[in-house]
Amino acid sequence: MIRIFVTGGTFDKEYNEIEGTLFFKDTHVTEMLNLGRCKVPFEIRTLMLVDSLEMTETDRQIILDHCRKSKEDRIVITHGTDTMAETAKILGEAKLDKTIVLTGAMIPYKFGSSDGLFNLGSAFAFAQSLPAGVYVAMNGRYFSWDNVRKNRKTGQFEENS
Amino acid sequence: MIRIFVTGGTFDKEYNEIEGTLFFKDTHVTEMLNLGRCKVPFEIRTLMLVDSLEMTETDRQIILDHCRKSKEDRIVITHGTDTMAETAKILGEAKLDKTIVLTGAMIPYKFGSSDGLFNLGSAFAFAQSLPAGVYVAMNGRYFSWDNVRKNRKTGQFEENS
Amino acid sequence: MIRIFVTGGTFDKEYNEIEGTLFFKDTHVTEMLNLGRCKVPFEIRTLMLVDSLEMTETDRQIILDHCRKSKEDRIVITHGTDTMAETAKILGEAKLDKTIVLTGAMIPYKFGSSDGLFNLGSAFAFAQSLPAGVYVAMNGRYFSWDNVRKNRKTGQFEENS
Amino acid sequence: MIRIFVTGGTFDKEYNEIEGTLFFKDTHVTEMLNLGRCKVPFEIRTLMLVDSLEMTETDRQIILDHCRKSKEDRIVITHGTDTMAETAKILGEAKLDKTIVLTGAMIPYKFGSSDGLFNLGSAFAFAQSLPAGVYVAMNGRYFSWDNVRKNRKTGQFEENS
Repeated sequence: MIRIFVTGGTFDKEYNEIEGTLFFKDTHVTEMLNLGRCKVPFEIRTLMLVDSLEMTETDRQIILDHCRKSKEDRIVITHGTDTMAETAKILGEAKLDKTIVLTGAMIPYKFGSSDGLFNLGSAFAFAQSLPAGVYVAMNGRYFSWDNVRKNRKTGQFEENS
Repeated sequence: MIRIFVTGGTFDKEYNEIEGTLFFKDTHVTEMLNLGRCKVPFEIRTLMLVDSLEMTETDRQIILDHCRKSKEDRIVITHGTDTMAETAKILGEAKLDKTIVLTGAMIPYKFGSSDGLFNLGSAFAFAQSLPAGVYVAMNGRYFSWDNVRKNRKTGQFEENS
Repeated sequence: MIRIFVTGGTFDKEYNEIEGTLFFKDTHVTEMLNLGRCKVPFEIRTLMLVDSLEMTETDRQIILDHCRKSKEDRIVITHGTDTMAETAKILGEAKLDKTIVLTGAMIPYKFGSSDGLFNLGSAFAFAQSLPAGVYVAMNGRYFSWDNVRKNRKTGQFEENS
Repeated sequence: MIRIFVTGGTFDKEYNEIEGTLFFKDTHVTEMLNLGRCKVPFEIRTLMLVDSLEMTETDRQIILDHCRKSKEDRIVITHGTDTMAETAKILGEAKLDKTIVLTGAMIPYKFGSSDGLFNLGSAFAFAQSLPAGVYVAMNGRYFSWDNVRKNRKTGQFEENS
C-alpha cells in the first residue's frame, strides 16, 4: 500500500480559458495512475493545491505531520518543483522510519507534453524499492534529501556539490 | 549508465494511415526519455522491432547475448507484453550478475493515452534501485522473472500463484 | 440546426488494448464538437459504425433514406474515407434539395494526431455556407459529389480529371 | 490560394517551463494545417505575435494594410479572441472586396485539448465559401463583422442583439 499526499505544483495546474491564466481545480494523480494501469494499492489525500513558491512553513509542517501519522510506510508526495528540495529537507531532518519520495513536473499534465507521467512512474517505483529515507525523484533519478537542489536556469535537479 | 535494448512491442507501434493498419517504423524510446526530462546517462540499441507474439527463440537468444555482453550492469528492455514473461524467463535462467528490467505498454505511445511513459519511468527507477536479477516492470509494480505472467483477459501482469 | 449522421470510419476507431486491434465502440463526434466549443445547434444520430470498405448498398440506401426524411436541410455525414466518394454519388444522384457534406479522417480521433477535428470544423462550415448539393469535405477543401475520388496512394482526395 | 496573416493570440501561446508562464515562440498554424492534411494552397505571414488585449491601433492598421495590399482575395487571420471583434470592425469598415475570416482559440494549440484545429478548419472553409466581407469564425459559426461580440463570461461569441 502506497500513501499519496498531493500538495499541488505544476503537475496539477490547468488553463482557465476565460481568464487566460493557470489555476488549480483538482488533482490529476488518480487519472494518471489509471492511465498508467497502476495496480499497486494506494490511498490518495490532497493536503493542499498550491504553487510551491507560495508554500509556507505551516504548509510544510502539515505535510510532515501527515507523513508522521501515516500508517503506510511508503509515501509519494506530489509537489511543485521550485521548493521541492526545501520540503524534502524538513521531512528528512525528521528522520521518520519511512520511504518518502517527492516528485513533480515541469509541464502540467493537462498540457499533453508533460513529464509528469514519467516522473510519477519513477516515484512509485522508488517508493517501493528504496530503503527508509526521504528522496526527490525527478529527471529519471532519485536524490537524497540532503544533497539535492533545483537548478533554476536549466529546470533540472542536481546534487549540491 | 543504463543500457536500453529495444525489441518492439505495442510501445513502438504506429498507425499507417494509408493501409489502416498498425506497423513499426522506429522506436520512440529516446523521444519518451526526452519528454520525461530523463538525465540518467543511457545508451540505446534497437535489436529488433517485432510484435512479441512473433518473437522467436532465436530473437530471445539475441537479446540474452546482448545482455551478457553488455558492459553496463543495469539494463532496460522494451518488449511486447504478450510474451514478456517468456523472455524474462530465458534471461533469468542465465543468472547474469546484472539488474535487467523488461517493460512495455498496452497502448502505443503515439496514440496519446498510452501507459508507456509511466511504465518507462518505473522501469528506469527499478533498474537503478533493485539488486541484480531479472524483473518485469508493469502496472506500477515489479515482478521477479520466475513468478510473473500476463493475464490475457485483463491485460494485467500478476504473480503465477 | 445541423443534422449529423454518423456511419463510422477511421474517425471513430479505437484501439482494443487486449486484442491489439482497431474497433468501434461509440462515436466521438459529440465530444469533438464540444472540444471545438461548437454552438451551432445540432442533432446527431448514429446510423451504423462500419469501416467504409465494408459498407453495403443496403447501408447506403439507409443513409440516403435518412437524408431524404431529415427535416433539417443541412446535413453532415461522418464516413470512412475509402468509399466516401461512392456514397456521395448515391446521395448526389438523388438530387435532394439539401446541403449534404460528407467528411472523415485519416487518423482516428482517439490517436491524438488526428485530422478529424480540422475536417469536422470545415464540414460544419461548408454545411452552413454552401448551396444545396452533395459535397465531400476533406483536405481543407470541398469537392462536388460528381467530381471526387480518393487517391489510394497518397490518401488525399482529388478531382477525377 | 488562401493568404494567412498570423497575429498571435491564445492559439499560438506556449508554456515556458522555466518561468511557469505563457509566452509566444512561433506560430503553429503551418503545423496545424499539415495535421489537417490541408491541400488548399496557402501563403502564411506572421505580422505580430501578441495577446490581443495588448494589440494597439497601430497593430490594427498594419493588419488592415496587409489585407488591402494582399494579392489574394481570400484571407484568414489568426487573432486573440478578446479583441477579435474590434479588429473585425476596423477591417469591415474598410469595405475591401475580399473575403476575410478571423479566427482564434480559447485554449493554446500546444495544450492538447484546444479548439484551435476545429476553428482553423471552419475558418478555411468559410474563407472559400462566403462572399466578400469580413467575418469572425468561432464556435462553429460565422458572424458578420458588424454584429459580433465576445461574451467575456461564457467565452463564446454571439451577436450584439
